[in-house]
Amino acid sequence: MKNIVYIATSLDGYIATSDGSVDWLHEIPNPSGSDYGWSELMGRIDAIVMGRNTFETVLSFGQWPYEKPVFVASSSLKEIPAHLEGKVRFIEGTPSEMVSELNGQGYENLYIDGGDTIRRFLAEDIIDEIVVTRVPILLGGGHPLFGSLTEPLKFRHAKTEVFDDILVKSTYLRER
Amino acid sequence: MKNIVYIATSLDGYIATSDGSVDWLHEIPNPSGSDYGWSELMGRIDAIVMGRNTFETVLSFGQWPYEKPVFVASSSLKEIPAHLEGKVRFIEGTPSEMVSELNGQGYENLYIDGGDTIRRFLAEDIIDEIVVTRVPILLGGGHPLFGSLTEPLKFRHAKTEVFDDILVKSTYLRER
Repeated sequence: MKNIVYIATSLDGYIATSDGSVDWLHEIPNPSGSDYGWSELMGRIDAIVMGRNTFETVLSFGQWPYEKPVFVASSSLKEIPAHLEGKVRFIEGTPSEMVSELNGQGYENLYIDGGDTIRRFLAEDIIDEIVVTRVPILLGGGHPLFGSLTEPLKFRHAKTEVFDDILVKSTYLRER
Repeated sequence: MKNIVYIATSLDGYIATSDGSVDWLHEIPNPSGSDYGWSELMGRIDAIVMGRNTFETVLSFGQWPYEKPVFVASSSLKEIPAHLEGKVRFIEGTPSEMVSELNGQGYENLYIDGGDTIRRFLAEDIIDEIVVTRVPILLGGGHPLFGSLTEPLKFRHAKTEVFDDILVKSTYLRER
């Protein structure tokens, strides 16, 4: 059972500008047509857990990009858009509680997405793997990926790949 | 003429813990005995510019590690320790003023060191190259490498090297 973060950040650790924009991410050329390991990730997870902000951002893209079940961590959202019936459910509780519940339902490997959600999971030290892709830009402000911790968390470098001589994607496993 | 940053950070972008410690950096095993490209860097710079905090931290190490002239950006420090006469000088002004002065003295390629100093140079957009080495730890707080900018700065990825399957060192060149 694994909780996995897979995310892109600027060199200074932001996942979106202060107005929530990820245009700087979408501007990256992709001459190789790579999916940057997305389908490999999707192949080894059972479900996705994301926060309300990420859910609403993805909704704004129009097309729903996930084939795996998505659990939205929210106590305020109640209604699932009609076209996402059966694809999206809401879930509440602490990160550990959510993971226990999902594991109990047979969802063992979870993709954890969204800044707030990732930070809450890291604060409880229940992230097992971080796949972080560095985009060669300094944003100088915005929504940070990482937050404060009560103590440092050590990781083991597993691998680093460079895509199109632009993106540096490194995989880290929690060293417990 | 180039202004170069060469620095190690935690995965969450800190260069020291909140008490200034870099023990987490010194704990990294170095089975290959690599100097991580340090002598190559020293070979292509003419001088080092660092802030007062970095200078005092390096002084506390006991042994002076630099063969190149060091300029300490400080208007408050006045006395150079006797054993560093001829090796260290003080310099004042904005980053651009310091660079002009040093370039005028024949120091063309500068290694810019220390969090405050690096942030001031980046804020004036006069950093040409960033060599950042990611250490596989989340510190969860401390002294950040990067600071706020009035606008994003784009870089071009030049190369990435992995040392001992632990450290990921990426070189970025400013794209103007």
